[in-house]
Parts: sequence; structure tokens; C-alpha cells
Amino acid sequence: MQLAALRHRTESEDCFVVSPHHVRIRFHSAKGDVAKVIVHYTDNYMPTQSTATIAMEKIGEGQVEDHWMATLRAPYRRIKYTFEVIGTDGDHKIVGDRGIKDFNEENLNEDSSYFKVPYLHQIDMDMTPDWVKHTVWYQIFPERFANGDKSNDPAGVKPWNPQDHPGREDYYGGDLQGVLDHLDYLKKLGINGIYFCPVFKAGSNHKYDTIDYLQIDPDFGDKDLFAKVVNEAHKRGMKVMLDAVFNHLGDQSMQWQDVVKNGAKSRFADWFHINHYPVTPYHNPSKGEGNPEYDTFAFEQHMPKLNTANPQVQDFLLEIATYWVKYFDIDAWRLDVANEVDHHFWRKFHDAVTAIKPDFYIVGEIWHNARPWLNGDEFSGVMNYPYTLQIEDHFFANKMSAKDLVEHLTDQLILYRDMNNQAMMDMLDSHDTARILTLAHGDQALALQALTFMFMQTGSPCIYYGTEMGMTGDNDPDCRKPMDWSKEDSSVWEQVHELVKFRLKYANTLGKGTIRLTVTKRGLIKVEREGQEQIVALFNTTKQAVPVNMNDSLSQNYENGQLLPEGFVIECK
Amino acid sequence: MQLAALRHRTESEDCFVVSPHHVRIRFHSAKGDVAKVIVHYTDNYMPTQSTATIAMEKIGEGQVEDHWMATLRAPYRRIKYTFEVIGTDGDHKIVGDRGIKDFNEENLNEDSSYFKVPYLHQIDMDMTPDWVKHTVWYQIFPERFANGDKSNDPAGVKPWNPQDHPGREDYYGGDLQGVLDHLDYLKKLGINGIYFCPVFKAGSNHKYDTIDYLQIDPDFGDKDLFAKVVNEAHKRGMKVMLDAVFNHLGDQSMQWQDVVKNGAKSRFADWFHINHYPVTPYHNPSKGEGNPEYDTFAFEQHMPKLNTANPQVQDFLLEIATYWVKYFDIDAWRLDVANEVDHHFWRKFHDAVTAIKPDFYIVGEIWHNARPWLNGDEFSGVMNYPYTLQIEDHFFANKMSAKDLVEHLTDQLILYRDMNNQAMMDMLDSHDTARILTLAHGDQALALQALTFMFMQTGSPCIYYGTEMGMTGDNDPDCRKPMDWSKEDSSVWEQVHELVKFRLKYANTLGKGTIRLTVTKRGLIKVEREGQEQIVALFNTTKQAVPVNMNDSLSQNYENGQLLPEGFVIECK
Repeated sequence: MQLAALRHRTESEDCFVVSPHHVRIRFHSAKGDVAKVIVHYTDNYMPTQSTATIAMEKIGEGQVEDHWMATLRAPYRRIKYTFEVIGTDGDHKIVGDRGIKDFNEENLNEDSSYFKVPYLHQIDMDMTPDWVKHTVWYQIFPERFANGDKSNDPAGVKPWNPQDHPGREDYYGGDLQGVLDHLDYLKKLGINGIYFCPVFKAGSNHKYDTIDYLQIDPDFGDKDLFAKVVNEAHKRGMKVMLDAVFNHLGDQSMQWQDVVKNGAKSRFADWFHINHYPVTPYHNPSKGEGNPEYDTFAFEQHMPKLNTANPQVQDFLLEIATYWVKYFDIDAWRLDVANEVDHHFWRKFHDAVTAIKPDFYIVGEIWHNARPWLNGDEFSGVMNYPYTLQIEDHFFANKMSAKDLVEHLTDQLILYRDMNNQAMMDMLDSHDTARILTLAHGDQALALQALTFMFMQTGSPCIYYGTEMGMTGDNDPDCRKPMDWSKEDSSVWEQVHELVKFRLKYANTLGKGTIRLTVTKRGLIKVEREGQEQIVALFNTTKQAVPVNMNDSLSQNYENGQLLPEGFVIECK
Repeated sequence: MQLAALRHRTESEDCFVVSPHHVRIRFHSAKGDVAKVIVHYTDNYMPTQSTATIAMEKIGEGQVEDHWMATLRAPYRRIKYTFEVIGTDGDHKIVGDRGIKDFNEENLNEDSSYFKVPYLHQIDMDMTPDWVKHTVWYQIFPERFANGDKSNDPAGVKPWNPQDHPGREDYYGGDLQGVLDHLDYLKKLGINGIYFCPVFKAGSNHKYDTIDYLQIDPDFGDKDLFAKVVNEAHKRGMKVMLDAVFNHLGDQSMQWQDVVKNGAKSRFADWFHINHYPVTPYHNPSKGEGNPEYDTFAFEQHMPKLNTANPQVQDFLLEIATYWVKYFDIDAWRLDVANEVDHHFWRKFHDAVTAIKPDFYIVGEIWHNARPWLNGDEFSGVMNYPYTLQIEDHFFANKMSAKDLVEHLTDQLILYRDMNNQAMMDMLDSHDTARILTLAHGDQALALQALTFMFMQTGSPCIYYGTEMGMTGDNDPDCRKPMDWSKEDSSVWEQVHELVKFRLKYANTLGKGTIRLTVTKRGLIKVEREGQEQIVALFNTTKQAVPVNMNDSLSQNYENGQLLPEGFVIECK
């Protein structure tokens, strides 16, 4: 047995409280190396001789590991447990708090062989909002969704041409009135959550260089209008998420301009991370210009990084964060560049917004492993790029085989607790990436197949505006074309609409059920979901018709050997 | 190569900020399986083509793993890194954020191959007080150290007989005046930190069943006297640590008695975890009496568990925690049953006491893996039982070979960040265990050898009162005999005194230097410490004289093959 591969970590994604009397535990072993894992467990103050046992379920096969799971009941809200591991080679071990021991009665009765959950505290539980698991999001880039009010168009606005290739500095006049005018459209599409890219006063078309977080950008409207948008969305059963850019300020902000002008004497000098004065000109290390005058987002001189360890900055940002929740009733914050802001601040942020709305949704923009932010006291979930980009690597880029895909996705699911997996925001494209139809080289069936695969996953799916219209677009800024309103009710639109309806109809299972990803013998990707219903989906990405084995068909509609053409089939019962 | 054994975890004991521009990282592989690990790293916004490389050092061999370490410099306070791993079988891989890939240029240039430290935040750094690393503790069980004031003796006090075997309910009259009277004695012994078992008003001789946290137990003295003890200790360069019993109250407390009397109507009903009323009689599940009326410490009906999720209880305990810091200037809290109190509370506790004294020392009583509490925002360290009990398993109980010992201790060190290892409280015995001389079956040389081995480790060593007098004692309550004042200046006393002086003289190295534990070819245990000095100690636990290989001798005082008798030798340069 590969002993160094036997892995478990207390109080983590491997061991978490799921109810006041239940703990879920996971265990990992080298692939194919372990035949059986049995958990021995009891109350921490009961003798080890009184343990109960439960066989762990192998819940998935990753790239190099098998993953095992069990849920234990703790009648007195404490539990100690150890793993009895039987190798496929017959090796028989105990894996516990002081390492690996031979399996025998004496070692099994040693208290030090047991991992401990000292007490199941509800206040430490990782809880994520239930409504998120019943939500399909729609992402709006406000400058490009709809122009509802010509009177607030910026100077030099370009004609609303969905075929246009937007430049970095172009304006098309999209605004909040445009969103308000189309809430019924969104209702008809079926989505029930709107995720807005930034709407606060800023210096660019994308508004990520904030000037004032307490003002709606005049290009988009004003607070009265924004309040109306939220209220009307709520009336239609839609949640509203705003984008918080708290990592950095725009360099046109009053605060940064004060530093530019007054240097170390500025009362905002400690709001930023300044290496030396004067702060201009900026020397960009990525261009070989030496050391930067101040820390920024990336090496972007227009985005000076905020010092979120400064209590004044914390107060400033927390006031903003709570203002839009308290007075405008928003339901969620998406946090821009969330990974570069300190954990200390995000814990305060979490406490502040959940004190107002206990089921507030917090989703961080993190492109890599986000485990450090997903322990219950910071974010509910993150933009699930490491998961969804691998879907694209298989479906669109042929960079990953079906086997690689399911193994890597399984490993990704194992990085987080179940409640966080369920609260991830899953998207295949966004304002920061090329659009799926472009990634699919114009193959709309393929784009929809991948989108369907994503909708079958755990996590709250998000559609980027225009996907339902079959819009194309390369990397930013090309992915930010004006919305193509001409394709409503097209066949693509209908298929996306059906997908949204399907997801919401089966949200209890798709949002909260178990998931298992495998590849059939003939190379179909099989997604099995189990919750209130049992749902199985088979995806054929082989570029040829493939026989379905009867065991892989839930309804047994497929006779053994019947072919699944390219595309997919979904069965529920 | 055993791929499932290749292990690294971001933002954990495997990846932690050690200075504003440096990150320390660790990597793990199956023992003997990997020849070389090379880290490729650069700023997160620099191209992967610009990476620097550093070879990792193999810092220790555990039970089934090799452990590797490197320290990386991040000039712009961000860093991305990936591991190039070369197996002893020639296999060549990259281990990164999306799993394991073949080693080649293309994979090395993929940004997704890199783990990320998004920004090195000082506010999130795990920092532990420097003074702890220069401290030798002395644990006092106040009822048994010295009786300085006969006027406060409890009724029925027994004669001060160090040969006595104390019963559970016995009193001997020890008090704070006794401690004050012996501060010069402690100064002479050389220790510079006093750790007091509880001194607050309680119902028993051990005072773990608190009645009033804001009153010194009248058996021990009063606040004026306690203030004097702290001030006089400080004058002598000694730190003072108190014992906080915050997991539970004593059942004689005003709060619990109110619940007993008024049931659900008590204003303290929500202070506890009550399952049903009336709360008496108590049904003890460990005696098969059914479900308990309320949650307790263990199944101890006299110690009802506090509900630390209740803001009133939080305020109550935080006021106590800060009161003794603010007004009596204590330097440290030892937290009783710390693992059973919620993390949410301990974070508030940490913030409250460090706001008053930034270098306040917080040490939790945790007998198992304490990783969840040692991330910088809760405790500085814990009572290091899982480490020290294994020392006893080898030196006293012959339950572990020398090889097993060094492997398991190495794995224990790998559980925590360096700064936490340095702030552990290491003790071989305490009021909760048998005394070392008893564990050593009366072999004083063996007891001192084990104590010396402990003093060579990372972590702040703690002597239990009377160890220097060669006191014996079996498990609690036998380990709580009245102090034997007759053995001052005995040879045992002198050896303990020398050990304390040695530890403090070389505190920079022993408290903060690197550590490597190995077994020589001939079976000596070798402890190598490196810091300001280089220190090597060899311990012979084989029960016979053993030749020292010249390579194992720092001073080369030992000719190749010269014998080390039972005992130990320490060399410094």
C-alpha cells in the first residue's frame, strides 16, 4: 500500500460539520491502491472499545487519488474517529492522529489513534445561502446590455451594432434604464439572479477604476433608478448581485489624487502601499523600468492598491459594503480581485454583511485554488474558473481527454466542502474571457453541449449576457459587444431557455445533490446526480456516434449498444 | 514515483509568510522516492518564462514521507511557484495548482501550473511573541507549592508532607504568599516564566470549577497579593501566565445555580447548552444513564459547558480575559480545554488581548493535532503533548524505537508553521500526568536525559514544580504532592539548574534555530540545531555504550569509534 498517499486533514474540507450532530469526513488514497476504508468512531469521552464502524464510500477517482467519504453522527456533539485501511495488496493499517499504525486491537484502543472533533459548534459551521443553489445567474456588463436612456449617453457614443468589435475606449450607451426595460425579457428567459459588473462612478467604460463607490455612474443612471431596478427584479423573483472593487481605487479618485498632489503629507498616504515619493512618474517593473512607486493591481498604474490593513480604509469599505445592502437591498456581492485583499478584512466584511442579511451571498473572483477563503467566515463561493476552464479545455480546445477532465473535475470538487461547491459561481465565459461560441469555433451545438455539461454540475450556473443570442467575441474587449437583441426566440435562445428551466426545475438535485463524474467504457462522459431525483447525463464528445451500455442508462431507454450521436442525453427519475 | 504522495497546500503550514517579502514553502513526497525538488517562481504578473529557480532542501524524514523546504523572495509582495519533481526512478513531473503534469516547457509556461500567494499581507501573518522563545517555564499548582500564610488555610488542612499521597479532596494550604516567598528561589533556579494553575475562586483544591473569575480564591490570597506576585516576578525578569477555564463553569457558580433553580426562566439559561429541563438530576451517558440534561466538560456534571456563541457569554469572558491583562499586567493565558471552545470566540479573544499587549502569549490545552488553532489568529502555541508524550514513549515506556521517535517527531514539526513550533509549550509532565521520575521507574538519570532531550527541541520548555527536587508522583492526584523543599541544591537540582541556564544561554539557537532529528548508524539519537550557534546533541538510549562516528561529532572530540556511555553529550560551536 502507498502509505504516504493516505491523507486526511481535521477541520478542513476533509472534516466538516454538516448539522448540529453530524460530521462529514473524507479520506484519500493512491488510485486503485486501497480496497476498503472503515471508520471507527465514538464520543471523545467514551472508551475506544465502544466505537461504532462505518464503511466509507468511494465517491470519486481523481488524477492520482481515490476519494472516500462518510457521514458520522455525534450524539453528544463530539466525535473521535480513526481509519482502518485495507490495501488491495492485503496490507492492513490504522491511520490516525499520530500517524500510521498496524491494524490490531491494541492500536485500535489507543486514544492517540483517533482524530478529534472536539465539539460541533454551529457558530463555526460553514453555511452557504440555500437560495443560491436554486439560482441561475445572468451576467450584465451594463455599458453593453441595453441603452434605455439616450439622455445619459457619454460623448462620442458609437452606434449599437452587435457586429462591431469594441475598442478599449469605446462607449455604446448601455445603462440601467436598459436593464429595467428588459427585466421582463430576463424573466421570460427564466433566470433568477442578475450579476452586474460595476455600476459605480468610474473613469472607464468597464468601471473597474472606481472614483466614487457611493454614486451610480451618471452614464448608467442614478440611485433612484438603481433602487427601482432592484425592486423590480425582486418583484420578479430575481436576486441582485453587485461587483465590489475593493482591492484598488481608480487613480482619478479624490484619495489618490490627494496623494499625487501632497505626497507623504496627504491624509490618504496610509490608504495605499507606497514604496517611495513622489508617486509619479510610475516605474513599471514588468517593462524593466525598476521598482514601482506604489503597489497596484498587476502593474496597472491607474489602479493603486488599497491598504486594507488600515482601519480607516476598512471603515470606508465596510460602510460602502453595508450601504448597498441596507438601503438598496442587494442580495450578493461579487468581489473583484478578491484574492489580493487580506483575509482579516474579508472576515470583517463577511460579518458586516451577514449581520444585515444572514443569507447574503459573497462570491470572490479567484482564478486558482480558493480553499483559504472558503472556510465559512469569508466567502460563500468563488467564480469557479479552475473548474470551468477545464471543461473548455476538453470540449473546445481538445487539450484534455474525457478521462483527464473527469479526474481533474473530481479533484477540484474535493478541494472544497460540499456547501461551498454548491455555492460556486460556474460560468464558461465572462467579461474577462472569450465567449463560448468563439471558443467553440462557431459550433453552436458544441457551445450548447458544454453549457449543458456545466448546468449539470454542482454550483450556481451563470450565463454571460448574449450567450442566449448566440453572440461571438474574442478576449476582452471583443467579448463586450453590444447585446444582439435580434435573436430573441431563435433556436439557440430556446435551447438556453430550456436549459435554465431544466436547472431550476431540478435545483434540489442539481444544486444540492451528490455528483459523480466518470467516463463510460466507450468514452461517453457520464454525470450522475442524486438528490430528490436521480439524474444521469451522458455527453458524447468523441466526434462520432457511440453505443450506450444499458448500465449507463437510467431509464434504460437505450438498449445495449444503441448509439448516442454527438451531443448529450439527460435522464431523470 | 508515488504521485499520490506528492503534497503541498497553499496558505497553510506548507506556505506561510515569514517577512514582508519572503514566503516559506514545504513539499512532501514518499520516503526515498524523490531525488530532487526544484521550485520555479516569479511575480504573479510576470510571465512564467521569467521564473527563477531554487532547489528545495530535504529538511526531515518522517514516518512515510520526506519533507522539503525553501524560502522564496517576492520583490513585489506577490509570488507564484510550481514544483519540478524528479523521482529516484527518473520520472520528471510538475506539481502545480491544477494537479500533476509532465515536465516540459509548455507545461512549465502554463500559468495554471503555478500556485499563488496573491499578496504578502502582514496583517494575516502568523506572528508569535519573541520572548517566549527565550523563556523556560515553571508550572505551579498553587495549593501544593508553598504555604506562606497559615491564616488562610482551608479547614482540615493536612500536614505539609512531600511523601504523602494526596487524595482528591485533600488540602495542604499552599498559597500565593508561598509563591511570593519563593520568587528568589525560582530566580536562583534560573527559570523566567511562571505558569500558574487556576487561582480564581472555585469549589475544589485544583480550582478548575470556577465560581468567580474576578476573585482570587481566598485559600490563596487576594488581588493585592496577586498584584504583588506579578510585580515582583516582573522585577526578576519573569513572565506570568494564568490558567483560563473558559470551556465550562463550576456548578457552584451563581449562573449555574440560577439555572438549577429557575430552569428555562433563568436569565442564564442561554449561557449553557441545555438539552432539557429540569437540569437535575444529571443523567450520565458514560454510565448508561441515558441522555444528559446539559452539555458538560467530558461527562462531568459539576462542569456545565458555557455557550460561547452567546454574545453575553463572550462579553463576560472577554472582560475577564482583558481585566487580568489590563490591571494586573499578566503576560500569557493558558487556556483550559481550549479545543472544545469555538474558533469564533478564540479569534475575538486573540484580538482582545493582543490589542492590549501585542506580544501576549496564548497557549491552548490541546492534546491532539492543533493545526486548526495555529493560523495566527487564535493561539501562539499549545501544550505540546503529542510531541512530548512520544518522547516518553521512547525514553520511559520502550513503546517506540529511536527511529520511530525521530520520524514521528519530525512529522509533528511538519504539522505547524515554524513560528508556532517555536511558541509551543513543551512539558514532559504536569498536574494532569504522572511525574517523569515515576514514569522513569525511579531512574533519575533517565528522567534527566529525557528532560535534556526535551530542552534541545524547538518550543518553550516547562518544568513542573518539584521536578528539580526529584519528586515522584503517579497520575493525578498523586502528581500533586506538596513541594519537597528539602532537596534544594541536591545533585538533581544542580543538573536541572544547569539545563535551564544552558537553554537560556543558547535560546537564539534552541528557541529559534532549525532542527534536524536523526538516528546515527549505531543507534544514537542526534539532535542538530542551527541558528546563531551550531549545537549537536547525541542521546544514547540503547542501554549500552555506543561508538560515536566522527561525522556525528561537531567538535570532533570523539575519535571515530570512541564510546558514548548511557546518557548524552552536547556540543556547541
